[in-house]
Amino acid sequence: MSTAIKSVETRLFEVPLPEVLSDAKHGDHFHFELVTVTITLEDGSQGTGYTYTGGKGGHAIKAMIDHDMAVALQGKDGTAIAEIYDFLEWHIHYVGRGGIASFAISAVDIALWDIKGKKAGLPLWKMAGGADHTCKAYCGGIDLMFPLEKLLNNIQGYLDCGFNAVKIKIGREKLEEDLERIKAVRELIGPEVTFMVDANYSMSVEEAITAAKAFESYNIYWFEEPTIPDNYKGYGQIADATGMPLAMGENLHTIHEFEYAFDQAKLSFVQPDASNCGGVTGWLKAARMANTHGIPACSHGMQELHVSLVSAQPNAGWLEVHSFPIDEYTIRPLEVQNHRAIAPDDPGVGVTFDWQKLQPYEK
Amino acid sequence: MSTAIKSVETRLFEVPLPEVLSDAKHGDHFHFELVTVTITLEDGSQGTGYTYTGGKGGHAIKAMIDHDMAVALQGKDGTAIAEIYDFLEWHIHYVGRGGIASFAISAVDIALWDIKGKKAGLPLWKMAGGADHTCKAYCGGIDLMFPLEKLLNNIQGYLDCGFNAVKIKIGREKLEEDLERIKAVRELIGPEVTFMVDANYSMSVEEAITAAKAFESYNIYWFEEPTIPDNYKGYGQIADATGMPLAMGENLHTIHEFEYAFDQAKLSFVQPDASNCGGVTGWLKAARMANTHGIPACSHGMQELHVSLVSAQPNAGWLEVHSFPIDEYTIRPLEVQNHRAIAPDDPGVGVTFDWQKLQPYEK
Ligand SMILES: [Mg+2]
Ligand SMILES: [Mg+2]
Repeated sequence: MSTAIKSVETRLFEVPLPEVLSDAKHGDHFHFELVTVTITLEDGSQGTGYTYTGGKGGHAIKAMIDHDMAVALQGKDGTAIAEIYDFLEWHIHYVGRGGIASFAISAVDIALWDIKGKKAGLPLWKMAGGADHTCKAYCGGIDLMFPLEKLLNNIQGYLDCGFNAVKIKIGREKLEEDLERIKAVRELIGPEVTFMVDANYSMSVEEAITAAKAFESYNIYWFEEPTIPDNYKGYGQIADATGMPLAMGENLHTIHEFEYAFDQAKLSFVQPDASNCGGVTGWLKAARMANTHGIPACSHGMQELHVSLVSAQPNAGWLEVHSFPIDEYTIRPLEVQNHRAIAPDDPGVGVTFDWQKLQPYEK
Repeated sequence: MSTAIKSVETRLFEVPLPEVLSDAKHGDHFHFELVTVTITLEDGSQGTGYTYTGGKGGHAIKAMIDHDMAVALQGKDGTAIAEIYDFLEWHIHYVGRGGIASFAISAVDIALWDIKGKKAGLPLWKMAGGADHTCKAYCGGIDLMFPLEKLLNNIQGYLDCGFNAVKIKIGREKLEEDLERIKAVRELIGPEVTFMVDANYSMSVEEAITAAKAFESYNIYWFEEPTIPDNYKGYGQIADATGMPLAMGENLHTIHEFEYAFDQAKLSFVQPDASNCGGVTGWLKAARMANTHGIPACSHGMQELHVSLVSAQPNAGWLEVHSFPIDEYTIRPLEVQNHRAIAPDDPGVGVTFDWQKLQPYEK
């Protein structure tokens, strides 16, 4: 039977969050959007890919897949993943190059990797490099507007779950507020726990330099997105002026953006997100480029998928356990043992949605 | 009465082209998409903005405006254009920064400028700088796959309409084919007519250098998009190696991309498109940045709108009269006298759609 693509079916879900989550530049999150893509080949093989958003863009992503990709993909060989990736990049180039198009391509690409793994009987961590099947993991809070007591309870919750690394949001109106929260968290977690901060690009280069110098005594492991992702050289200036390890990547959507970041931003960590940088194919391109620059490949969001991608790399960094609990809507929520996240051994991408649990939130 | 935004209404049209148009990287165009946005304020003021695509992305653009922008805009002051522009950039930042989001923001922004002009009784060319109300114009063919005879007939048609500047597509399989077409066009138009070529980023840097050297004797006014828009330094290398004037801009969607292009690409001309770089607001930012770099501000597409924007600049360049005839679906198709395009004096952006003519193509 042929491996030609027979159908491409999408669904959009608006999944409520248990509580309102806030950061410095995206404001309040009440829900996240999940767009799923199920691809069926003529031979009956089936795979499901997906992407997610912070609550905006889901309809546009679904519309692009439905109207601009689905018909164009029909009949193409669903096992020729690299060729399809390249085809889609050019197919929507004029309205693409990042943004919605990268999210749409990502979901399709993940579905094709799911098919590939199921056909070969291989889990994603083996297909993606196979260096290991576990990786370091940390909990990333979206907690900028939590009152201090709630913030500390939240962090304590992470430690109680067995994590030894945590990240908080910064970028409150006054730097003193950030410092007060950083100080309180460090006092709570003690000197041994790894501690990162994330400003969601809310600061100017000058503000970020001032802030980084003020954090210094709290042993901050990395300073994430101090300033806008487009200002690669500004990142370099912050790194030069402070020596603070910098991280970014969740807002880099094309391989060209990663190239500029590696060349100019003086990053210590990179955090590509397979849901918005071209799926497994795009994530691996970024991670391998990071390896040639000696930079650990971390991740942003969708821990249930990235656990396999990060673990598999020779330059494996840290898996973010994101506060959007996509993994709770799958049949295998993220597993963590001894502070390390464990990649699934199931053939395919290892993410099987619990459609019944998702169904009430379908748009 | 309040100037708060009361409603934001979108329509999507798929407008057929009279013949198939082809270029080197987008393939065949059978139609173009037009997305219109009509904004009504509480005081009854109304403006219409729009964007267009080469046939893909229209549904996603409409979905983004309908689902992610319309409700968020309701109640905001529709005369505070800069604030709304900034709001929208951040509102969809995570799924934005270029691509579909830039097209969606553009359409909304143009509608608000339309309202502003109507309220003030001012035409766009006065609001946008007022340097002049006419500008140089050239006809841009999408003619890569036209047989030579048809190509020459097409060019003759441009001359017969009173134009003294023409552009053809290049990037055929072999450079010899491009050279044959360039030679034939130059022979047809004679030495006085301005002649540009456009490769739609189909070449590597090396190929573009070889091609530019081969064109040299045909007095090519500019070489447009020789290579991918993301490779700013590659443009600089082509300029350095050949001395050929380079042009690009239709694929730059954010002000940061323009910044990198001005700093690194050694452009002789820039061609922002208000339909995909943030509307009137985004186009003016790019044009003014061009002015500080001593670069003429040209345009890509939607001649019926850009005629006002280009004419108004102290660094006015060339208006492209694009082969997607959006202006034929307005009540005032582009006017040209003595080789110069003339901006409308009607208050607002000066583009009023002929909805009846468009209606058969609504999706
Ligand atoms: Mg982050
Ligand atoms: Mg062009």
